[in-house]
Amino acid sequence: MKERSQTVIASGLDGVAAAETRLSAVNGEAGELIIAGFPVEELAGRATFEEVVYLLWHDTLPDAAQLAALRDELGAQRPLPRSALELVRAAAAERVPAMDALRMAAGTVSLGTAAKDGTEALALVARLPTIAAAYWRLLGGDEPVAPDPGLGHTANYLYMLTGEEPVAEAVRALETYLNTVADHGMNASTFAARVIVSTRSDVVSAVVGAIGALKGPLHGGAPGPALDVVFEIGNPGRAEAVLRERLARGERLMGFGHRIYRVRDPRADVLAEAAERLYATEGDQELYELALEVEKTALRVLAEHRPGRNLQTNVEFYTALLLHGLGMPPELFSPTFAVSRVAGWTAHCFEQRALDRIIRPQSAYVGEKDRRWVPLEER
Amino acid sequence: MKERSQTVIASGLDGVAAAETRLSAVNGEAGELIIAGFPVEELAGRATFEEVVYLLWHDTLPDAAQLAALRDELGAQRPLPRSALELVRAAAAERVPAMDALRMAAGTVSLGTAAKDGTEALALVARLPTIAAAYWRLLGGDEPVAPDPGLGHTANYLYMLTGEEPVAEAVRALETYLNTVADHGMNASTFAARVIVSTRSDVVSAVVGAIGALKGPLHGGAPGPALDVVFEIGNPGRAEAVLRERLARGERLMGFGHRIYRVRDPRADVLAEAAERLYATEGDQELYELALEVEKTALRVLAEHRPGRNLQTNVEFYTALLLHGLGMPPELFSPTFAVSRVAGWTAHCFEQRALDRIIRPQSAYVGEKDRRWVPLEER
Repeated sequence: MKERSQTVIASGLDGVAAAETRLSAVNGEAGELIIAGFPVEELAGRATFEEVVYLLWHDTLPDAAQLAALRDELGAQRPLPRSALELVRAAAAERVPAMDALRMAAGTVSLGTAAKDGTEALALVARLPTIAAAYWRLLGGDEPVAPDPGLGHTANYLYMLTGEEPVAEAVRALETYLNTVADHGMNASTFAARVIVSTRSDVVSAVVGAIGALKGPLHGGAPGPALDVVFEIGNPGRAEAVLRERLARGERLMGFGHRIYRVRDPRADVLAEAAERLYATEGDQELYELALEVEKTALRVLAEHRPGRNLQTNVEFYTALLLHGLGMPPELFSPTFAVSRVAGWTAHCFEQRALDRIIRPQSAYVGEKDRRWVPLEER
Repeated sequence: MKERSQTVIASGLDGVAAAETRLSAVNGEAGELIIAGFPVEELAGRATFEEVVYLLWHDTLPDAAQLAALRDELGAQRPLPRSALELVRAAAAERVPAMDALRMAAGTVSLGTAAKDGTEALALVARLPTIAAAYWRLLGGDEPVAPDPGLGHTANYLYMLTGEEPVAEAVRALETYLNTVADHGMNASTFAARVIVSTRSDVVSAVVGAIGALKGPLHGGAPGPALDVVFEIGNPGRAEAVLRERLARGERLMGFGHRIYRVRDPRADVLAEAAERLYATEGDQELYELALEVEKTALRVLAEHRPGRNLQTNVEFYTALLLHGLGMPPELFSPTFAVSRVAGWTAHCFEQRALDRIIRPQSAYVGEKDRRWVPLEER
């Protein structure tokens, strides 16, 4: 970071705190994550997702009446209006990426009553699962399953994916995942949402922008490829050879190491526990054991190959294992991340709106300054 | 700006340069604006909008063949696909804000061939006028006018609004406006676009986010209310009394003063000249003279009322005068701004993509840290 007159040049904004927040704290050196005052391991495995939404929006856990009201409101907002469903159909028919389908359909919350009633944030949280599930079913040639207002937010998402009511262990596992990744400091998508709403724009515009940012592979938290090496290895005996070969070729091992966490990502522990419980009743126990063996081997080989780096299992590894155990294909991993993170995005919108200050950095001009016009015929 | 361990706290990012750019330079102290190497007054009144798009994308003016190719490509991309037109129809039927209609319909560029061919930026530049014009006509109960591929970008926009081929003076006036505001440093919408694309997301997602940011009234460049005082004053004799009364009530005069420019906004001069020429052939000459009288009186009264502030006519005042002279209602001012600024947004996306570095600031946590779980029944 260098000074240029009054201006701090900070390409990428590394090390610049763009806002104060009460929503989450990431301490990468200590391996700690606080979500609205709670250490993630205190909160994620116990709360329903609706409780975490309430917590992020109101900075306190709801009492029974408040929670029941939020569940009802979210349940009522779940069905997709015609315009949203048509976009999802068109996206599935053309096989455009799931995140584009999610972005387009989420943008239609500006149509209908939610925008007029000031319930856009509710509608966004309620409808992202409906959009993701409808897209996935249409992509596979199945008709969407209508939401069931009698089910909680998380159970209903699984129900809309399969058409079958999920077992309690599956709901608990997904609930824990959604709670674990609901907010994580000032990541790029959350920051995009805050920049947009900082102009006094609306929450739909902000969340649509955030979905667009989350789509990018540089956004930390795209867990798609983290299990690929496990599938490639196939049986435990091959783990060491395959991993050593990859490292010898100079490849990065997806699922290990994190841009911020220098010790074990606290979310990995929470999700590891959730995955263990899930696979004890649901999913492919053999794959689970293979994944644990691959993890153990990878940590040993990495410690040897990259001494001093302290590369640890990251959140993507256990996210992929857990979502795979729930029957989700990798194409649904990023949309499911958005289904969770929309809680954080909307909460950051409320926080930024209360601050009411535009986020507007400067740029440093490095081009020419005195070009002169040349008519077309002389070029 | 204060230091907190390694982190610079910069709420709002005032004075932080988030990127280097060759696209535009804003010097508020000197009242200078450079667009891709050209002082704005050198470029805006001479170029077609297609030339400015080419300049921003390629850092050089096109030769005749390059310009013809760009015109053809943009012309071919103008028609709206069905999904976009349906969203515009729904938005007009529900009378949702024009910027929401623009955002939703622009997002559908991800459907169809543009996203597959890598021509999303072309499609976005080409279609924003089609969307804005279709929305406006549908809002008034008229059917959209299909684009005419034989017309240039600017002439075709005016044609789609009215169904009549515009006179050359109107085209030149709008062309000058579009060129003048095509890029302006790291404003909030441009920054939102760069944050989104910095994750390696796509240009459609970035422009959709930028439209959402531009919608907000704190984004500098919403020229809607700048002429309101002129209409209220109605005849030149009332100017001084009305303006003094407003200032005495502590009101800000829209159309005067700018967050960055401490001297006269260079864009105001360019647009003042364009407006003068336009009103000499088109539009309400009486209104034009009234506006000039209001401006003169406002500058005199402001100098007296806010001595030392050096408040000058800003770009919004002449934008509103010019777009009004072209027959546009205030509801079209922000969409027309987007029709221009999409050139800058897309160019910034290309620049950010070449840099390939995520924009990810930090946040400073100010909440609690050790809350403990309380079961629902004990809350």
